[in-house]
Amino acid sequence: MSDAKLQSVLSSLSKVHRQLDSLPSSPAPDAKYVKLNTNENPFALPEAVMESAVAALERQYLYPEDNNTSLRKAAAASYDLSTDQVIAGNGSSELLSLIYKAFLDPGDSVAMLSPGFAFNHKLALLQGARLLEIKWGEACLLPMHKLLFGPAKEAKFILLANPNNPTGTFVPIADIESLVAQSDRLIVLDEAYVDFAPDSALRLIDRYSNLLILRTFSKSYAAAGIRIGFGLGHPEVIGRLRNIQNMFNMNVIGHAVGVSILAHRAAYDENHSHIKYERERVSVALSQLGFSVTPSHANFLLARVPAGRDGTWWHACLKRRKILVAVLPDDGLEDCIRVSIGTKPQMDALLAAVEDILGVQTFR
Amino acid sequence: MSDAKLQSVLSSLSKVHRQLDSLPSSPAPDAKYVKLNTNENPFALPEAVMESAVAALERQYLYPEDNNTSLRKAAAASYDLSTDQVIAGNGSSELLSLIYKAFLDPGDSVAMLSPGFAFNHKLALLQGARLLEIKWGEACLLPMHKLLFGPAKEAKFILLANPNNPTGTFVPIADIESLVAQSDRLIVLDEAYVDFAPDSALRLIDRYSNLLILRTFSKSYAAAGIRIGFGLGHPEVIGRLRNIQNMFNMNVIGHAVGVSILAHRAAYDENHSHIKYERERVSVALSQLGFSVTPSHANFLLARVPAGRDGTWWHACLKRRKILVAVLPDDGLEDCIRVSIGTKPQMDALLAAVEDILGVQTFR
Repeated sequence: MSDAKLQSVLSSLSKVHRQLDSLPSSPAPDAKYVKLNTNENPFALPEAVMESAVAALERQYLYPEDNNTSLRKAAAASYDLSTDQVIAGNGSSELLSLIYKAFLDPGDSVAMLSPGFAFNHKLALLQGARLLEIKWGEACLLPMHKLLFGPAKEAKFILLANPNNPTGTFVPIADIESLVAQSDRLIVLDEAYVDFAPDSALRLIDRYSNLLILRTFSKSYAAAGIRIGFGLGHPEVIGRLRNIQNMFNMNVIGHAVGVSILAHRAAYDENHSHIKYERERVSVALSQLGFSVTPSHANFLLARVPAGRDGTWWHACLKRRKILVAVLPDDGLEDCIRVSIGTKPQMDALLAAVEDILGVQTFR
Repeated sequence: MSDAKLQSVLSSLSKVHRQLDSLPSSPAPDAKYVKLNTNENPFALPEAVMESAVAALERQYLYPEDNNTSLRKAAAASYDLSTDQVIAGNGSSELLSLIYKAFLDPGDSVAMLSPGFAFNHKLALLQGARLLEIKWGEACLLPMHKLLFGPAKEAKFILLANPNNPTGTFVPIADIESLVAQSDRLIVLDEAYVDFAPDSALRLIDRYSNLLILRTFSKSYAAAGIRIGFGLGHPEVIGRLRNIQNMFNMNVIGHAVGVSILAHRAAYDENHSHIKYERERVSVALSQLGFSVTPSHANFLLARVPAGRDGTWWHACLKRRKILVAVLPDDGLEDCIRVSIGTKPQMDALLAAVEDILGVQTFR
């Protein structure tokens, strides 16, 4: 009886979901490792932010504020926008998923500059949509012709990140503006790493209704575990996304930490200076050790490993030495590893492990 | 130019979402009110749980554990299930929304025992689906014939809550089993209020693959602001829902508080006794004041107001006295208010306000 019931229940799934088996899940991270694989920011919260978080724990029994109003107001003030130009998410990952849900019917397509954020493959699959990967141009510039007149023209929206993940490269905002001005598609611009970069597209929001910027506090504000993200764009587009957002999508700690970080952004200046300093130091050191490092505007480095081995080999060797780095699923990046920039001791541990693997001793 | 672009962007929305304008949003609650309108549990977390939450704040920079593994393991152990029978959500509201997404294509229907949780109207609307409201039977029993042979037979799933919201009534588990055994539909049973009730359907999970139970820590564990919910069911059904869950759906505080509450459930015994005691006390007091109170198995009371005025009038009168209660959108409940059970001082304030409104003085 049970099996027939189960088949009946599964046959009630929607058309798209009936075709999906369970997707694989990744194992839990191990606290004993030096974690340089997911671009976190391994520093404590500023004291004032921590105090706000603890205070919020005492309002734990009340439902969170509806519509994330205080957090959206604080972000609007901070980014010089109006509150209806801001949606707040349980991480920008929630916002990305709302965009997919709002814009895609089964059979539709979405375009992503590639290599890009691998999670988009899963998001497209879940909508029954096709992810068109549009290769970045030479020197990681925008492939403008392909985006305006190629297959991306039929996509429901176009995704790109600036600085880009996993390359760390940065496109001048004038190029972004040129794309947004010429395209009639929604351009979803992920600025997760913007605080480590020289410029932002924020000033274009008021000028172009087809630009939607995503921000997160996971990278530059050391709050990946709290889940705080923002979407910034035209009120009508933001309103449609807020429509489909689940009630109480963020908890009281997310609200309190988000508001407090916005009030204490200057407290992160030293953090950002440190990361940029270490980024340059590690980049030079890895280059001297035979890696080819892409100049980065983010809190990570994309490094092509010395000839003879590939990224997977280096990942395994480093993991044996208790250091986690990322290998990339993208075509052409098989010989690369991506290394997050952490504390000085973490980066020293990485460099020591690399030297150990290479069997060389360098005086630092 | 901007308007043409905006029209182009909006025309890229999916079929369902193109038809939806912005939905209304409710105003933020005011801290000055005695809040008896959303069935929260206005007590502090047990000390040990609070300590776990503060400790988790120091892991704020790391992404939350993938797949909610530790929390799901803890819940499985606590409920005597296997981990693959458990999905953990950012509140049971997230889980409800995943169920709608997984099972409904536009044009499909879902059945809900009515009166029920009003949020389901919005969830159905967002999938382009129809919500069939099936009225509870006499004395709030299950309308078995309608559920098995009426329009609910074509629904992709059937929703009911036990104890039910907003009535507070409780259906014997034998009746639930009878429905689950005879129906080949997925039965989604919301047990949000189960800790205030005499029994639970948990023991049926291993026997019926078409039963999916929802639990939350918002009501009985005083954690509405943290957002912790569970879905308990057949591994294949749970797996399909986990497939479509966003990565990092809960933050590190949600994980820590959830695990810690499961380890300290006994610390809530006094809380639950208090609420049941106050529920009876207030029920008797309101009855003596001319209200007709439905016997409740939850942490709230559904009270028909004295003849001559309706629920909206009482809601407004109480609000002027800084007390918030709920009025219900359902047909037939226009003359009712729903009152959450809180602390003794909160309930005394409610009773004093009611007496004041009635212009009577009662010795208590």
